[in-house]
Amino acid sequence: MALEMADLKRPSGTRDFLAAELASREAVISAIREVFERYGYEALATPAFERLDVLTGKYGEEGDQLIFPIQRRGERGTKGEADLALRYDLTVPLARVIAEHSGKIVLPYKRYQIAPVWRAERPGKGRLREFFQCDIDVVGSASLLADAEVVLAVWEAVSAAGVSGATVQLNSRKVLYGLLEALRVPEHLQRAVLISLDKLEKIGPHAVCRELEGRGVAAPAVASLEDFITSDDSKERLFEFASTSALGQAGTDDVRRLAEHVRSIGSQVDVGLAPLLARGLDYYTGCIFEVVVPGYSGSIAGGGRYDSLIGTLTGRDLPASGGSLGLERIIDITRDQNSVQFTGPDALVTVWNNETEDAALAAAQDLRRSGVSTSLYLGSGRLEKQLGYASRMGCKVCVILGPSEVAGGQATVRDMRSGRQTSVSLGSLGKAVSLMVNGEASDGVRPSPDTQKSA
Amino acid sequence: MALEMADLKRPSGTRDFLAAELASREAVISAIREVFERYGYEALATPAFERLDVLTGKYGEEGDQLIFPIQRRGERGTKGEADLALRYDLTVPLARVIAEHSGKIVLPYKRYQIAPVWRAERPGKGRLREFFQCDIDVVGSASLLADAEVVLAVWEAVSAAGVSGATVQLNSRKVLYGLLEALRVPEHLQRAVLISLDKLEKIGPHAVCRELEGRGVAAPAVASLEDFITSDDSKERLFEFASTSALGQAGTDDVRRLAEHVRSIGSQVDVGLAPLLARGLDYYTGCIFEVVVPGYSGSIAGGGRYDSLIGTLTGRDLPASGGSLGLERIIDITRDQNSVQFTGPDALVTVWNNETEDAALAAAQDLRRSGVSTSLYLGSGRLEKQLGYASRMGCKVCVILGPSEVAGGQATVRDMRSGRQTSVSLGSLGKAVSLMVNGEASDGVRPSPDTQKSA
Repeated sequence: MALEMADLKRPSGTRDFLAAELASREAVISAIREVFERYGYEALATPAFERLDVLTGKYGEEGDQLIFPIQRRGERGTKGEADLALRYDLTVPLARVIAEHSGKIVLPYKRYQIAPVWRAERPGKGRLREFFQCDIDVVGSASLLADAEVVLAVWEAVSAAGVSGATVQLNSRKVLYGLLEALRVPEHLQRAVLISLDKLEKIGPHAVCRELEGRGVAAPAVASLEDFITSDDSKERLFEFASTSALGQAGTDDVRRLAEHVRSIGSQVDVGLAPLLARGLDYYTGCIFEVVVPGYSGSIAGGGRYDSLIGTLTGRDLPASGGSLGLERIIDITRDQNSVQFTGPDALVTVWNNETEDAALAAAQDLRRSGVSTSLYLGSGRLEKQLGYASRMGCKVCVILGPSEVAGGQATVRDMRSGRQTSVSLGSLGKAVSLMVNGEASDGVRPSPDTQKSA
Repeated sequence: MALEMADLKRPSGTRDFLAAELASREAVISAIREVFERYGYEALATPAFERLDVLTGKYGEEGDQLIFPIQRRGERGTKGEADLALRYDLTVPLARVIAEHSGKIVLPYKRYQIAPVWRAERPGKGRLREFFQCDIDVVGSASLLADAEVVLAVWEAVSAAGVSGATVQLNSRKVLYGLLEALRVPEHLQRAVLISLDKLEKIGPHAVCRELEGRGVAAPAVASLEDFITSDDSKERLFEFASTSALGQAGTDDVRRLAEHVRSIGSQVDVGLAPLLARGLDYYTGCIFEVVVPGYSGSIAGGGRYDSLIGTLTGRDLPASGGSLGLERIIDITRDQNSVQFTGPDALVTVWNNETEDAALAAAQDLRRSGVSTSLYLGSGRLEKQLGYASRMGCKVCVILGPSEVAGGQATVRDMRSGRQTSVSLGSLGKAVSLMVNGEASDGVRPSPDTQKSA
């Protein structure tokens, strides 16, 4: 039954989180959740897996290849056959929930979900196969106010997570398609052109235009585009040019109105218009946005309106708008400022020998009842080793209970930061230690300046 | 791409949790987590899947059949081949983490994990295929204090979750094997005998003894056992009889000492000794316990010492003791007292028409900044429908912003419980609504008796 030690590894592309790292992650998640709930979005939890046929065909050919199928078990199963698959994103499960629980869900349905998804990325490239997604969506609203609210909530969540200086870029798919219409790009080339335009920031205007030529876009269209995107006032001119088509005009109106909404609430949101912002996902139909941070390439959040997707998935037409935070990226970026000073339990109660065991257990319970998180030493080391354990665990206080202390109804309390030891009566141990670690006690006694300094 | 509506179902044996139910579940989980952390146990998170070879062969033949294998993807994959599998429990991942992160983990390692596991139970029998486990374990401690601490923490967690009247039953595997030794039950029959004894409460002493005869246990042994288990003072006599073997004596000493420890801390824990308590899992080696609640059959939590398992799994011998809460069961039992009064957002801000949109958005932001969770109405209904939406969402307050209100710099605030409406200046809207929904405002104004009554 024993495996070789070398075999005992987690699967590639996955991570274990020990307590300290988990605490930092949870601080970020909880800050984001608090914002979403303040915006009136409610939580949703769905199973880790869905029926395979519910997921297949929803993410394009490339996406389908990254779905993890789960094998059917039991007597009805044929060996190797799959009927379930791990959740690939949080959007298809949302659509499925709306179809399945339509009687219980009040529309417009505002929900958020922060949960892991799984993708069979090729291992060994540092890509994660298990990572968290963090989505908010409004389903059942065609209002531009919904787009505005999503942008505001996402921006505020990103900020609450500790990202400073984030700015918002707005556009509409209608602007892009209006632009292509004005440029007379034939329909069968439009998707490819958008994919190229999306790379503008990454590869520069010249490379984008050469790529467009390679894709078969007519020379005059490429020349016009190149003129636009290399000029100083390109943004205004692009919106104007797109507006020569009715679709582009509608999109431009939407984007300007959305920017007004976002600015109108007098928040500190730095909003810019980005007429070439495309976002990769095919399913967007209206306004789209990205949140970027100076000094970091790519976006850390984004989203937009997708009025056809829910209908396509469920057969029930429902307009929708949503946003998604790049949670793993945000955790990386904010690692320094968010690193919660994780210290393990506040106190360690030492155990001298068998005779003092019950006193140690009672002291630990007393501390816990006083709200002090307390670890009882359960190893076999002597006092020095126990103090070392307390130190490695980050305990603030060590309660030393030797036979003489127990006999005298006292404990020696050691401040692990200063090394100072004081004798405390067992009867007031909980209160005294609570005062030391929390800087307060229930009876209103204030900590001495000394304790405060070292806290 | 659209599926038939009938196809859009979650997989059998899984559940979706909408906000209200999720809030109740999270209240239970958070109460349990708080207890574990107060006891100095730290959190751990592991991936949803492990390598298939890490899980296979760890849960017996029956368990292996319930593991969900995940198919290998990508170019290296052979169609249908599996190399990963969904987590079946939290114990094997714990052992794997200890092997993999030995340099980072301080022993004794006290950790808890509350997370879903997946088992391919036969669908259609109401059995869950995704459910939460809730484990605490001390790894690297042979001390009986560890067993005591686990019992106390589990009992307190169960109580904190809202279960009242829970009692603890203690035994040791050594008592059981000592008993079998004293009864001269041959080794090859011992496991089967334990399985029968475990059913005592369910099928009664007579049926157990007939089963033992059927299993080939000698008549004198069965007769002795029957005499013990039908007598009034059976418990004491069983411990005494088991103690005629050295192993049984050691086990009896352990159990008595453990009970003393648990009682010594003067808690309200109702502890009983149960010399025939076996617990199903093979891997226990020392003290074992179960938490039972009057009126509910079976146990709601349990655990024990397993000194060989970690060594068997990892090749590194480490004594360990742990406990597990039947979280789904506890949530069921405490459904009534734990049902969090989930009300959705505190306030709904209505939207009259396009002209009032920005005022509505600004009012919503103002409320959110004042700490009031606020939903902006994003549907297309008129006022009556919007009030109905607020009511279905459980909002306490509705902020009505018609053109006349906006022009006058006022909002009409409707108390959704009393139906009373008051006019509030937009400049003090946040403070006023915060007062209504939270019963307090930052400036120290106290709520009127009226508001308190309806709060």
